[in-house]
Amino acid sequence: MTRQPFQDTVAALSTPPGKGGVALIRLCGEEAIEIAGACFRAKNEKDISLFPSRLAVYGNFYYQGEPVDDVLLTVFRAPHSYTGEDTVEIACHGSMLICRTILEALYSKGARPAQKGEFTRRAFLAGKINLTEAEAIAELLDAQNREQIKLFQQDSRSHLSLALASLYEGISSLLSAVYAKVDYPDEDLAELSREEILSSLEELMEKTERLCHSYKTGRAVAEGIYTVLLGKPNTGKSSLYNLLAGKDAAIVTEYAGTTRDILEVSLSLGRVLLRLADTAGVRETDNPVEKIGVEKAKDAARSAELILMLFDTSSPFDEEDEAMLAFAKKTKAVKIALLNKSDLPALWDASRLGEGFAHILPISAKKGDTDALCACVDALFTDGSLQIGEDAIVFTARQFAALERAKEMMQNAKRGLAAGFAEDAALCELEAAAVALAETDGRAVSEDIVSGIFSKFCVGK
Amino acid sequence: MTRQPFQDTVAALSTPPGKGGVALIRLCGEEAIEIAGACFRAKNEKDISLFPSRLAVYGNFYYQGEPVDDVLLTVFRAPHSYTGEDTVEIACHGSMLICRTILEALYSKGARPAQKGEFTRRAFLAGKINLTEAEAIAELLDAQNREQIKLFQQDSRSHLSLALASLYEGISSLLSAVYAKVDYPDEDLAELSREEILSSLEELMEKTERLCHSYKTGRAVAEGIYTVLLGKPNTGKSSLYNLLAGKDAAIVTEYAGTTRDILEVSLSLGRVLLRLADTAGVRETDNPVEKIGVEKAKDAARSAELILMLFDTSSPFDEEDEAMLAFAKKTKAVKIALLNKSDLPALWDASRLGEGFAHILPISAKKGDTDALCACVDALFTDGSLQIGEDAIVFTARQFAALERAKEMMQNAKRGLAAGFAEDAALCELEAAAVALAETDGRAVSEDIVSGIFSKFCVGK
Repeated sequence: MTRQPFQDTVAALSTPPGKGGVALIRLCGEEAIEIAGACFRAKNEKDISLFPSRLAVYGNFYYQGEPVDDVLLTVFRAPHSYTGEDTVEIACHGSMLICRTILEALYSKGARPAQKGEFTRRAFLAGKINLTEAEAIAELLDAQNREQIKLFQQDSRSHLSLALASLYEGISSLLSAVYAKVDYPDEDLAELSREEILSSLEELMEKTERLCHSYKTGRAVAEGIYTVLLGKPNTGKSSLYNLLAGKDAAIVTEYAGTTRDILEVSLSLGRVLLRLADTAGVRETDNPVEKIGVEKAKDAARSAELILMLFDTSSPFDEEDEAMLAFAKKTKAVKIALLNKSDLPALWDASRLGEGFAHILPISAKKGDTDALCACVDALFTDGSLQIGEDAIVFTARQFAALERAKEMMQNAKRGLAAGFAEDAALCELEAAAVALAETDGRAVSEDIVSGIFSKFCVGK
Repeated sequence: MTRQPFQDTVAALSTPPGKGGVALIRLCGEEAIEIAGACFRAKNEKDISLFPSRLAVYGNFYYQGEPVDDVLLTVFRAPHSYTGEDTVEIACHGSMLICRTILEALYSKGARPAQKGEFTRRAFLAGKINLTEAEAIAELLDAQNREQIKLFQQDSRSHLSLALASLYEGISSLLSAVYAKVDYPDEDLAELSREEILSSLEELMEKTERLCHSYKTGRAVAEGIYTVLLGKPNTGKSSLYNLLAGKDAAIVTEYAGTTRDILEVSLSLGRVLLRLADTAGVRETDNPVEKIGVEKAKDAARSAELILMLFDTSSPFDEEDEAMLAFAKKTKAVKIALLNKSDLPALWDASRLGEGFAHILPISAKKGDTDALCACVDALFTDGSLQIGEDAIVFTARQFAALERAKEMMQNAKRGLAAGFAEDAALCELEAAAVALAETDGRAVSEDIVSGIFSKFCVGK
C-alpha cells in the first residue's frame, strides 16, 4: 500500500470521556492550523500562524461567535507531530459539553470526526512509526502490569523496529549480491561466492530464529498464559488463589465472557501474565449444579497451558488426589505440582506423584511465599537471557507468523543452495522471505492487516 | 484568611480516569520542576531547568530507573500558570496503569497527591482567580447546556468579578471620604458633603440592587426551575414531555435520588434550565400502587416553582380537569396553562380556567412548536435586559445572600444619614456592607466557605 497521508483534517477528543479537570482535543491534517485559528483568539492577540511550534498559547475558543471556554492551544507543525502532519492540541476544561461544543465548532469549519486509531494510523501512513510500534502503542494503552509497560514502551518499540529493519536490509543486500552474480556472471563485480552467500544467509537465519524465539517471552508477557488451579477442598486452593491475585491487587483485572464462560483473573507471576481461570475444581460430585461447575473446570483445564495442582502433604494422599492426578495427566498443559502446607509434618512425599510434572514445589500458601513459584513459571515461559526493554522482543502472533514464514523461505533458499541448485532458484525464496518480513513492520503490508490493527484502537488515539 | 500559597508540591491526574489516547498529569508547587526533572529525560538531552516556559518537550519518563512512557512535558513557570506556582504538565499515553506509575514516580520524589479542587484552590490562594471565578469553573465542568457555558465561561467570570470589585472599591472610597470627614472635621480636605455621601451611597445601592436582581436570571440558568407537568390522560402529556426533552436530546440528563424520589429530566427552554419532574400525574385513582405515584406527583407539584398544566380543548372540559385545576390553584407555583391540540376545533376556551395563570397559551404538541412556551418561560424567569456573557450575573445562592446582606447594611446607613444621625453612625453599617461584599469574591472570607466551595471539585482540577 502507498503511504500518502490523508488529505483531510480530522478532530477527536483524545482524553477519556467524562468529567475531569482538563480534556484534550486533537486536530490534525493540512487545514488543522487554519481551522483551529478560525475558532481561537489568543489573549496576546497574535495570529495562530505566528505561534511558535509546541508553545502552549492561552486564549478563548469560540463557536458561532460566542466564547465557549478559555483554553491552552498548542500548534505542532509538520513533520514534528505525533502524526507527522500539522496538529493542534486544545486543552479545555474537562466537561463533555464543552468538548462536544469545541468539536462541533471544528467540524463546522471543515474538520471531520477522526476514526478509531486514526491519529496513529496517520502516523504510520506518514512513516512516523511502523506497524510493530503501532501495535505496541495499542497494547500499551491496555497494559496490565509493569512488565507489559516495559515491553511496550518506547525503547522496546525501537529495539524491535531496529532488529526487523536490520534483518530486512540484510536480506535486501544479500538479494542484490545474488542478483548481481546471476545477471552479470562474467563481469568483475565485487561479488559473493556461493559459500559467502550461504554464510550470510545462515547469519540472517540465526537472527530470524532469535526473533522468532523471543516471541515465547513476548507472548508470556503480552498475551499471558491461560492457567488453571486444581486442588481438592481444603488443600488451600483459595488461600493460594487469593495470595496470587492479591500479590499486586491494583493490577488484577477480572473479566467475564470468555468462550469458556469462566471468570479469569489476570495476575503477574515473575514476568509472566497469568490468566488464571476461576474454576470450581474437578472433584467428583452428585450435585447437578456443582456437576456443571466441575465440567466447566475440566474443560478449562483441558485447554489450559499451565495447570497448577495443589496437594496437601499434611493429610493422606487419597482417592480424590488420585483422580485429579489421573485427569491432569491426560491434559496437554505444563503441570506444576504444589505441595502445600509444607510448614506441617508431611504424611507423603513427591514420589507419589510420578512423572509428568515440570516442577514439584513445596510451598506454604499460609506463609505467603511465592518466590519459588514465580521463578519456576518465569523459567518455564520466558527466555531468561532476554532483557525486556533491552532486547528486541516479538509480541504479537501476527509478527511471529510473518517471521516464521520468512524463516521457512530462507530455509528453502538454503536447502537449494546447499543442494547445488542454480543461485537464481534461491532468489525466488529469498524474495518471498523479504515480502514476509516487510509485513512485520508494515513497510509493505495489505490494507486488511492495517485495518485490523487500527480497528483495535480507541477514538482519539 | 491569609493568601499564602501552599508550600508543598502536589500531583494528580487532571483528565478523566479511564482508557484514552492521551492523559494529562499535573504537578504544581515549589519543587514541581525539580521533581519532574528527576523522572524525565528529554530527547534533546537538555536539562529541565533550561526548558522554555510553555514549550512541550518530548522525552522519556522514568520510574525506578526504568522507562515508563514517552511523554510530552510542558513547564509553566510561576506566576504564569493555572495555580500561579511552578507547574509541570505531563501528557502520557492514556492508560490508567501508566498514569498510576507516573504518579507513583512523582510521589516517590516528594510530591503528594492533590486533594479535590486543590489546583483551583491554590490558584485562588495565590490570587490568580477569585472565589466567584472558582465557583464558575466548578459549574462549567458540570455545564448542561450552551446557556450555562455562556454564563460560566471566562468573559462572564470577568464581568462578575469586575462588577463586584468596582462595588467594593466604591464602598471603600466612600468609607475613606466619610472617615476623613469624621476624623478631621475642621481641616480643609477635599471632602464630600452629606448630600454627596448620600448620593454616592444611592449609586452604590443601585449597583448592588442590579447585581442582586441579576440572580433571578443567574439562578434560572445555573440552578434551574423545578417544574411539574400536569395533565389528565390523553391530553398529550407525554408528547409534550418528549417534545421538550427531545428538543436537544444530547443535553438531557436524567438523575434519580432527589429527596422527592421522582426522576428529573433537565432540559433547556429559552435560556432557562427546567428541571422537569417525571410524574405520573395527579388524577384520582383507586389503584393503591398508582395512588402512591399520584401522591408523589402532588408532592412534587406542591414544591414546584413552575407548573405546566395541559388541557385538551378538542374534548370536553370535565370533572378531572376541574379537580386538577382546583388542586393546582392551591399550590404556590407559577402556572402556565397549555391548551393543547390547538390544531383541532376547540370545544371550550380559556375563560373556563379563571384566574391564577401567568400565561394561557394555545399549543400543538403534535406540531411540535414550542417557541411561544420558550419565550414565555424565559420572560417569567429571566431578565430580558440582561445579556448572558456580556453582563455581570450572580449565579450562586451564596453570592446572592452576601449581596443581599450588603444591600441591607447600605440601606441602614442611608436611613441613618437621611434621618440626620451623625455620619460615623453610618460608618459602622457601611463597613459591615464592605465585609459582606468581600465575601462574594473571597477577598476576605472564612475558611469554612472556601472549603465548602472546593469540596465540590473533582481531583485534578
